[in-house]
Amino acid sequence: MSQSPAAAPAPSPASRRTPSSDKTLLRALAGERLAVPPVWLMRQAGRYLPEYRETRRQAGSFLDLCFNPELACEVTLQPIRRYGFDAAILFSDILVIPHALGQKLWFQEGEGPKLEALAGSGDLGRLDLAPLHERLAPVYETLDRLSSALPGETTLIGFAGAPWTVASYMIEGGSSKDFQAAKTWAYGDPDGFQALIDLLVEATSRYLIRQVEAGAEVLQVFDSWAGVWPEDHFRRWCLRPMTEIVRRVKAVHPDIPIILFPRQAGALYVEVAETAGCQGVSLDTTVPLGWAAQHLQPKVTVQGNLDPILLVAGGPALETGARAILSALGGGPFVFNLGHGIVPQTPPEHVSKLLDIVRSRPS
Amino acid sequence: MSQSPAAAPAPSPASRRTPSSDKTLLRALAGERLAVPPVWLMRQAGRYLPEYRETRRQAGSFLDLCFNPELACEVTLQPIRRYGFDAAILFSDILVIPHALGQKLWFQEGEGPKLEALAGSGDLGRLDLAPLHERLAPVYETLDRLSSALPGETTLIGFAGAPWTVASYMIEGGSSKDFQAAKTWAYGDPDGFQALIDLLVEATSRYLIRQVEAGAEVLQVFDSWAGVWPEDHFRRWCLRPMTEIVRRVKAVHPDIPIILFPRQAGALYVEVAETAGCQGVSLDTTVPLGWAAQHLQPKVTVQGNLDPILLVAGGPALETGARAILSALGGGPFVFNLGHGIVPQTPPEHVSKLLDIVRSRPS
Repeated sequence: MSQSPAAAPAPSPASRRTPSSDKTLLRALAGERLAVPPVWLMRQAGRYLPEYRETRRQAGSFLDLCFNPELACEVTLQPIRRYGFDAAILFSDILVIPHALGQKLWFQEGEGPKLEALAGSGDLGRLDLAPLHERLAPVYETLDRLSSALPGETTLIGFAGAPWTVASYMIEGGSSKDFQAAKTWAYGDPDGFQALIDLLVEATSRYLIRQVEAGAEVLQVFDSWAGVWPEDHFRRWCLRPMTEIVRRVKAVHPDIPIILFPRQAGALYVEVAETAGCQGVSLDTTVPLGWAAQHLQPKVTVQGNLDPILLVAGGPALETGARAILSALGGGPFVFNLGHGIVPQTPPEHVSKLLDIVRSRPS
Repeated sequence: MSQSPAAAPAPSPASRRTPSSDKTLLRALAGERLAVPPVWLMRQAGRYLPEYRETRRQAGSFLDLCFNPELACEVTLQPIRRYGFDAAILFSDILVIPHALGQKLWFQEGEGPKLEALAGSGDLGRLDLAPLHERLAPVYETLDRLSSALPGETTLIGFAGAPWTVASYMIEGGSSKDFQAAKTWAYGDPDGFQALIDLLVEATSRYLIRQVEAGAEVLQVFDSWAGVWPEDHFRRWCLRPMTEIVRRVKAVHPDIPIILFPRQAGALYVEVAETAGCQGVSLDTTVPLGWAAQHLQPKVTVQGNLDPILLVAGGPALETGARAILSALGGGPFVFNLGHGIVPQTPPEHVSKLLDIVRSRPS
């Protein structure tokens, strides 16, 4: 793999700020190996921060916060101000897509998201692509504001959920233990389920293309529930739709770096790295480090994969865990991150400690 | 790997029935490749069967059923009578170990198991190995009854939970989404957590040794939550304790075949197959078949790994899924099973259909 930037990012409002070649995340995603890797954390804007909880109180509901450009911009900036991460990720939620397609969505305090579940392909008529951009306009405005508000050296990341993960919420009506409703649909009516996945590929591609136009310099696609399928169904419902999204976004913005996160894909991470056309893969906590260095890093930039619970625990376990990752993966193109989102119980000072570890010059 | 039985099973009451060399599960676990593989299903005795629900009503609580040798024997036999599986697995629960150690345990209808949670190593004094065998005596009696009651060709499987999975319930007080309490303990107080794991290794080894003496011909150890750790902690809290249990059981019963199920271990399945000293590894649904044939099957017998939700869905997806497994893994030593336990919503006739597929002569 090339050790120098293979391609400049697509021109975007964000390039008004700092030459892209100075941005560490872009350099790492272009295949460059950095002595100190870029670092950001999934859910770095969130409930573990007192300033987030304060803004959240002002906003009303969680969805109100997602759709309020001023406040969504504010909470995106909070962890940048506090910690100086190398990248800021848009504050939003993967379920704004079903919401924009017309599915009723609400967040029950302490219970997570709830949706009016789709019962089968007969319900697909309830979904409508037409008002997509109008309903997502506040998200694009948030990105536009962030492009101006972020420090010059900070990369702006846009994101979306992968079709399978989003579909699972749409069918289960929320989170699920064994995905029985969604999988039974996919197994019993693959054509109908394919129609839902196709609709999500189209909506998600349009959404991400517009995110780039609004200022996103990197995109990440989250397939949080990728790790529940037999391999052939993983290929059909996770890998193929994500690959198609990458293709469609790059048809419009050829140089936008894309990170895929097929969480818990196990040995199938190799196929994602080899075939999806992405620049980065984000590793969950369970991916063995030496295995990733051997099988994934020669093909793509790897990102990850500290256990978020190590960030709750702190102490020597946090230090040992972070150093093991740096030592195993720092030799190739690499982005430091968690293996899953930060949890609300994380003491903010543990995040400072982690940044000290990651950013200390290698001895 | 040898294609003929490498070792005869240990003498046990079960050998009163049929010469062990005629039992398909024992032959497969000895490394033999069978034209038609042995088949059994995790949770094959359970709520999807009307006769189980009837016996369950007579028993009182779920725990009452586990500790009633007559009824536990009855529900173990029900799927053998109905389907003629190659093996019967003791009807019990992995949490009888904490119960036997003195931790309060109850099952809330529809909510799963609840325990009076351990808060830290200060609570280890509440646990006591002394009454272990007395409290587990009904389980041994169930096995003894099964040894006499089972058809001659049916192999009797005993089982236990792996230390990490059992510990997670003991600390979380039930099932968990992110294992925050258990992991925070392990990360923050590894010596205290090691003491709990050591106690569970000791209790589980004694329990399994006694199960063999009561008639179990094969043992399976379930590490249902193995797939949540960074690799070094997987080695310490999952792989090493299971390996130690295998060593201790085999020190007493050298020829007992042992199957380990480190669910969601991903690429780390290889280390289990190479180092744990077991005869079989049980694969979860996500393990790619060609990868398992290449990296695991040359070292151990593999078991698995049909998605239990395919058994709910039925139809062409079930047939395609089952045939893909048979085709990829049937060439080496293999046991057909699910990738996780049967779910209550499974139509019993889909199980018959699956057995027809597995047992049809290869064309």
